[in-house]
Amino acid sequence: MFQLIPSGTITSAKGFVAGAIHAGIKARDDLDLAILHSQSPCGAAAVFTTNKIKAAPVILSQKHLSTAQAQAIVVNSGCANACMGQQGIANALQMANLTAQKLGIQPGDVLVASTGVIGTPLPMDCIRSGIEKIKLRQHGGHAFARAIMTTDTRPKEIAAQVSFEGKQFTIGGALKGAGMIHPDLATMLCFITTDATVDTGFLQASLHRAADISFNMATIDGDTSTNDSVFLLANGMAGNKIVNSDNGETFQEALNEVCVYLARAMVHDGEGATRLIEVTVEGATTQAEARRAARTVAGATLVKTAIHGGNPNWGRIAAALGRSGVEMAPDKLDIYLNNTHVMKQGCPMTFNQEEMRVTLLARDTTLIRTCLNLGDGKATAWGCDLSEEYVTINSEDIT
Amino acid sequence: MFQLIPSGTITSAKGFVAGAIHAGIKARDDLDLAILHSQSPCGAAAVFTTNKIKAAPVILSQKHLSTAQAQAIVVNSGCANACMGQQGIANALQMANLTAQKLGIQPGDVLVASTGVIGTPLPMDCIRSGIEKIKLRQHGGHAFARAIMTTDTRPKEIAAQVSFEGKQFTIGGALKGAGMIHPDLATMLCFITTDATVDTGFLQASLHRAADISFNMATIDGDTSTNDSVFLLANGMAGNKIVNSDNGETFQEALNEVCVYLARAMVHDGEGATRLIEVTVEGATTQAEARRAARTVAGATLVKTAIHGGNPNWGRIAAALGRSGVEMAPDKLDIYLNNTHVMKQGCPMTFNQEEMRVTLLARDTTLIRTCLNLGDGKATAWGCDLSEEYVTINSEDIT
Repeated sequence: MFQLIPSGTITSAKGFVAGAIHAGIKARDDLDLAILHSQSPCGAAAVFTTNKIKAAPVILSQKHLSTAQAQAIVVNSGCANACMGQQGIANALQMANLTAQKLGIQPGDVLVASTGVIGTPLPMDCIRSGIEKIKLRQHGGHAFARAIMTTDTRPKEIAAQVSFEGKQFTIGGALKGAGMIHPDLATMLCFITTDATVDTGFLQASLHRAADISFNMATIDGDTSTNDSVFLLANGMAGNKIVNSDNGETFQEALNEVCVYLARAMVHDGEGATRLIEVTVEGATTQAEARRAARTVAGATLVKTAIHGGNPNWGRIAAALGRSGVEMAPDKLDIYLNNTHVMKQGCPMTFNQEEMRVTLLARDTTLIRTCLNLGDGKATAWGCDLSEEYVTINSEDIT
Repeated sequence: MFQLIPSGTITSAKGFVAGAIHAGIKARDDLDLAILHSQSPCGAAAVFTTNKIKAAPVILSQKHLSTAQAQAIVVNSGCANACMGQQGIANALQMANLTAQKLGIQPGDVLVASTGVIGTPLPMDCIRSGIEKIKLRQHGGHAFARAIMTTDTRPKEIAAQVSFEGKQFTIGGALKGAGMIHPDLATMLCFITTDATVDTGFLQASLHRAADISFNMATIDGDTSTNDSVFLLANGMAGNKIVNSDNGETFQEALNEVCVYLARAMVHDGEGATRLIEVTVEGATTQAEARRAARTVAGATLVKTAIHGGNPNWGRIAAALGRSGVEMAPDKLDIYLNNTHVMKQGCPMTFNQEEMRVTLLARDTTLIRTCLNLGDGKATAWGCDLSEEYVTINSEDIT
């Protein structure tokens, strides 16, 4: 029902253009300011950080989204515009105003996002001249995806083409992540566009569902940020029959796929990460319990360091499950590491430690699967290994 | 009312003897098996890990403590005897039986503790001949404190002499920690002795209170272990008037002091730690909220790495508070870093970044103080910085 578009991005969907520039917010010569614009007004949905300290752009975007409509997004990297009091709010509003003026739209139809260091003021001169100079292009999604990066080592983008009741529509996404990433969102910014016509209520509901099984199941370091935002804009230019809760399954599946792809890519490119850890918990009493257990294991420091060293120390997986707070019977617990059965009914299995070590180090992804053997609850979470480089990166003053 | 005893340890209290030996559980030549013995039966209290996967010695000790009485403790390092099913229980029981036989006491009066790698069987031949050979001495506490170490770099011991209604009694403690340490206990073992005569109910209650403000406010890496145990034995040989809930204030204060000292020492000697982080939260709506906020900040990876690098990135402290889940008003938040006011009413203060960096790097302890300015709730938590060395230690197969 849907297929990936080679080199797809947020401007793959009809009617979206984007552009980026080095405005001077970052010291280096990197892109640090970007705009996404839709030819026509979009139905808009978003999910934001649950952190009680919300950055100014989050507060402003929440306000602008009260209409469930938007037509542009302006985003900067290099400065989070967080913990800046009234000045922060004024600066975020000015970013929206300048963008609206440039595009000839209403300021209330502009969403704002920022990422970078907390507690320093936005350099508004750079922002002002940057917004003025940005050129919007049909293939500008790639520049946009690069401009939102902080400690990311590569841009993260995807687009999928979906067949739906005789028509085609596209869903595209771009994301930045790298640090301060944890379930329930963290310094991640994600922008998703679609030219599908989607019922407004369904748009928000479908984004929540997709975020729940993707971004909210991804953890890098257990910290959550003041700035996290996932935006979804639908401009309706594909001319399809309206997608709603009665016929929305195909849209939901494609959106899930886009979000899971981006969440995995984010974790894989976590600060200092050398490998992705995929944790599946089966047999929990409920799905909520499975989610909780999977996230605890994926975020456990001692599991992350063991995987980093190719150390098949499954005892740490058992210990993480044990402290996750979910219902479990220690003598029913099974654990598989890269499909090798290492713990059976709560007791150790014999396996070739040295062989396992070699496999762990050789593979890009480590699979941890555990069965609690209590019920039908199942969930998957993603984490990454914890390396010396993570510490080095975060001891310095980058983010 | 109490004073520290120079070189005090768990055998400082009257009637306690201890000894240790290299039994061969650890590959290196280090002490790895120890016994603590009281001349007379003791009132006994303990708190154990909340992890649902409990090691065999924890399960056995909980059973033996149903009488609230004990006379000896046997402990090994190098093997956790966890996740070993029925064999683990049988081995822990055998440790108790062999110790009881050696000392001529009841097996039910012997408590057992183990620490080390999960999922490997205890080498019972080493344990058997080791228990036989251990010599118990009046100053054996120091050897005991060394024998329980795993990745600890130094033994952690203390004793205090307490004046109480015209008599003197002593409280001594020894602890091991280093990794898998988190609020609500983790791979830490702590042994506390006293020659005071203490009411059994009060003994358990006072240990709970002391653990709540010490071990349960200490975090190293967010992981909790299968083996954590804090034991408190009171043999009554000081001949004091019985300590109970009516007159227990002095005993409680001294016990708190011993536990806080050991908790701080544990965190300071955390795996790879170069500095202690003391987090005080004031002005929370309740004490429970203050505890939660303080523990979240002390355990936040990005705070820990910043402190490691001498990076005065207080935005990460604000972000950690924001995700802690406690009630807060962002525009009322004050943050102090080593007594410098860095955030006032939710906005950044100007301070000399370079000077702060030098101070952070120079001092052994970093003080983080934050005031939520909402109520009277106050609490202190302890954590340590996160270093490259932590990752290196835990990527290998030591614990």
